[in-house]
Amino acid sequence: MSKQVAVILSGCGVFDGSEIYETTLTLLRLDQLGIGYRCFAPDIEQHHVIDHRSGEVAEGETRNVLTESARLARGEISPLAELAADDFDAVILPGGFGAAKNLSSFAEAGAGMEVLGELREALAGFFDARKPIGLMCIAPVMVPKLLGNGIAVTIGHDPGVSGAISAMGGLHRTCGVEEIVVDFENRVVTTPAYMLATRISEAATGIFKLVDRIDELMDR
Amino acid sequence: MSKQVAVILSGCGVFDGSEIYETTLTLLRLDQLGIGYRCFAPDIEQHHVIDHRSGEVAEGETRNVLTESARLARGEISPLAELAADDFDAVILPGGFGAAKNLSSFAEAGAGMEVLGELREALAGFFDARKPIGLMCIAPVMVPKLLGNGIAVTIGHDPGVSGAISAMGGLHRTCGVEEIVVDFENRVVTTPAYMLATRISEAATGIFKLVDRIDELMDR
Repeated sequence: MSKQVAVILSGCGVFDGSEIYETTLTLLRLDQLGIGYRCFAPDIEQHHVIDHRSGEVAEGETRNVLTESARLARGEISPLAELAADDFDAVILPGGFGAAKNLSSFAEAGAGMEVLGELREALAGFFDARKPIGLMCIAPVMVPKLLGNGIAVTIGHDPGVSGAISAMGGLHRTCGVEEIVVDFENRVVTTPAYMLATRISEAATGIFKLVDRIDELMDR
Repeated sequence: MSKQVAVILSGCGVFDGSEIYETTLTLLRLDQLGIGYRCFAPDIEQHHVIDHRSGEVAEGETRNVLTESARLARGEISPLAELAADDFDAVILPGGFGAAKNLSSFAEAGAGMEVLGELREALAGFFDARKPIGLMCIAPVMVPKLLGNGIAVTIGHDPGVSGAISAMGGLHRTCGVEEIVVDFENRVVTTPAYMLATRISEAATGIFKLVDRIDELMDR
């Protein structure tokens, strides 16, 4: 029986959902390592829809996070409410603005943000069972609200976001795009990905390291 | 000055647009090889919208191919009408049903299909200049209508689709998911990708070979 990893998505597109390349590269590396995976997303309306051509809000348009995330999973996806930590060995959250708009309210509320209740519950199961948790791009900003204080993470080196992490009780470590930050005690692995990446190959290097480290941590 | 490749998209999602993993893996490999790229898509309405969770048509919903393709390009995309072969050294078309629904009418009309006029014009510029052309998944079914008769391509080994290619004057070669078919005379490279892939790492192997061969052909 191969290891199994849950991947939590937040839509399909960098500006209002999961970052597409980060998600694809995560799944590629898991599969290259022979690790099975299943995608999950919350069955809720998106915060909004962004026209990715213009960068503007598509007024009057609504999309469902689970339905759009299904595009990224080629239809193979389940509602986040059905994710049970018992069924998996680790969990990974790609980034994209969906993490700051659909899974949490960070984009609007900053350090005063809230996180989606069913996400917090799902991650608590992994955290309490000491199963590794990986987050990339902007997703690590949710760690203080999801997992508690004093957990070392990175979002690269953006002063506003790292300051918010500190303000919420988190620990931020500056990190390059092709590197990872590992909190061994808490079994949390993070990488900046498209918080810093200017090329897809840069993002791939950091994301592959994150998945490789999650793989190692599953063995301990 | 690095080599430059145009990548032509048809939406964002396997069932009504470009296959997301095929596109991402193409861009990853181009970037890993130090090749520049630019994405293009036609500024037209999608044939339809598929709910990727249920697999059903989303009745009453409309989306624009260029706007949705912009998700796959992180906003960096141009209308297909602006693609000039003079500006690029090669062109690649990922697959997904968008190639059979938005770029052509193959999904509805089979061997009686038509192809989008602006796509045929854009590809003619590459073909006439003997610049390499790569196509993957279902996209090679368009080759007889886009580039003419007698060009060897693969879509894997589906008898219906390969029969349609033959009926339109094309040459179909059976091919495994991790392999490519190269028509050296016509400088056309194809790979089955998600016509056959059951795992993302299989698709990656074939797609990486396709991009590597396009890279080699650009040198000759």
